[in-house]
Amino acid sequence: MKRVRAGFQGELGAFSQAAAKQLLGEGVKPIPYERFDLVFRALVNGDVDAAVIPIENTLHGSVIENYDHFLNFDVKIVGETKLRIVHNLIAPAGVKWSAIRRVFSHPVALNQCLDFFAANGHLEKTTFYDTAGSVKMVVEQGLTDAAAIASSMAAEIYGARILKKGIEDDRQNFTRFFLAQRPGDKPLLPQAGEKKTSLVFTTRNTPGALFRALSAFALRDLSLEKIESRPLRGKPWEYLFYVDVLADLTDEKTKRALGHLEELADFLKVFGCYPKAKS
Amino acid sequence: MKRVRAGFQGELGAFSQAAAKQLLGEGVKPIPYERFDLVFRALVNGDVDAAVIPIENTLHGSVIENYDHFLNFDVKIVGETKLRIVHNLIAPAGVKWSAIRRVFSHPVALNQCLDFFAANGHLEKTTFYDTAGSVKMVVEQGLTDAAAIASSMAAEIYGARILKKGIEDDRQNFTRFFLAQRPGDKPLLPQAGEKKTSLVFTTRNTPGALFRALSAFALRDLSLEKIESRPLRGKPWEYLFYVDVLADLTDEKTKRALGHLEELADFLKVFGCYPKAKS
Repeated sequence: MKRVRAGFQGELGAFSQAAAKQLLGEGVKPIPYERFDLVFRALVNGDVDAAVIPIENTLHGSVIENYDHFLNFDVKIVGETKLRIVHNLIAPAGVKWSAIRRVFSHPVALNQCLDFFAANGHLEKTTFYDTAGSVKMVVEQGLTDAAAIASSMAAEIYGARILKKGIEDDRQNFTRFFLAQRPGDKPLLPQAGEKKTSLVFTTRNTPGALFRALSAFALRDLSLEKIESRPLRGKPWEYLFYVDVLADLTDEKTKRALGHLEELADFLKVFGCYPKAKS
Repeated sequence: MKRVRAGFQGELGAFSQAAAKQLLGEGVKPIPYERFDLVFRALVNGDVDAAVIPIENTLHGSVIENYDHFLNFDVKIVGETKLRIVHNLIAPAGVKWSAIRRVFSHPVALNQCLDFFAANGHLEKTTFYDTAGSVKMVVEQGLTDAAAIASSMAAEIYGARILKKGIEDDRQNFTRFFLAQRPGDKPLLPQAGEKKTSLVFTTRNTPGALFRALSAFALRDLSLEKIESRPLRGKPWEYLFYVDVLADLTDEKTKRALGHLEELADFLKVFGCYPKAKS
């Protein structure tokens, strides 16, 4: 059987790879890319079968860049998952906790472990491009006084050792990921259960424009799960709204709601309809 | 005359300091803090007279953390400004462009100059905690093969030289900053002209709850400038909505709208009413 190739941004061992495993199982073949747009392009070009894309984090909010890519690339969302972000202190095999003086990681990860650094004042925080990449680096360079902060998967992949587990300040640190495929392809996930539909629309900047647009859902008792506004680039008086609705695209009610929204909005694009993740 | 002390996050020369100058004039005394919560605390404690807080960037979206601080600290917004983010390549005095091999900056800044790095493949990107801090570092350490990416103000403050101006990929890179003060204090900015009111409210996760809440504004022809939803931490079925309305709190219509919203929402907090920034 051919393994499913899942593209993601980051080094091998990134949290996106853990999300790919959570979505597609152990057999998935992870294909890392340096940038998000390259992941989308790889999917469109057929270099990968699916893309695993972080879209929001409970502490940091939406990954705006990726909403823009969903707007600009012709792909569809077929699934979502929520991953708890657990940060671990990871050192090359043989390096002891007492020897650690420098800790490498992405600034966001370092900043999510401030209590740990406050309790261990002798450790110097050092920024690095990527969480998993910092594990790779301390292992490859054989540093004897350094550790990295990353996922447990990164420790496994680079043959490093977890010295301290779960050193993040806040346990309510979750990232939501979308699974995207090419529009014509058969979904890699079973499409059963309660559904969510993600879409974007624009309205003129007139009083009540958003209110009227939302009536398309509200008047049909369809529940909004998320809404985010963003100024439309280059058009200072128009706005984009990214919306998740608890609705199944195959339901007559949803079809009518989207027809109604199309009437009220200047522009509408549906990113996909997919099974809602269990919380 | 006593100089106004403005707290901000980052090193001296950070973009927030440029925003403080734009808001309060040349005479402002910038007081840097390591973290955003420390800036808010300093304002509440009276260690500074005002806080200058980035709230959204056109490329990266909202600074969610700061919305949470406005929710949790007792401060009021009295002004806003939009700052064009211009990245410059900055080296210690005497270091020539031809000598540069390494470029230090915050990862976000490095990633906003990818075209520059693509055109200059011999330059190695190296992450650092802070944009202005990276200028400080290359100057203090007297590096002869290194430059930093930061604001022109950082070059001035640390006596460094701008080698290349405006190396950012996208000119549509603006950050919006709030000016905050203690609730009882006299606003440091003239409160004339068109007004904006920023607030947060929560609704139950029932179909149409947001639609009903927005009716408080729509039925009075009050225009929404921005809306952002966020799951309420620890309460998975409730949502926060951060909203900017083009409305003056002293108008009878606005008062009635907020009274109406209070009736429809579970919780409501007004962050402030302030003059809309010129675009």
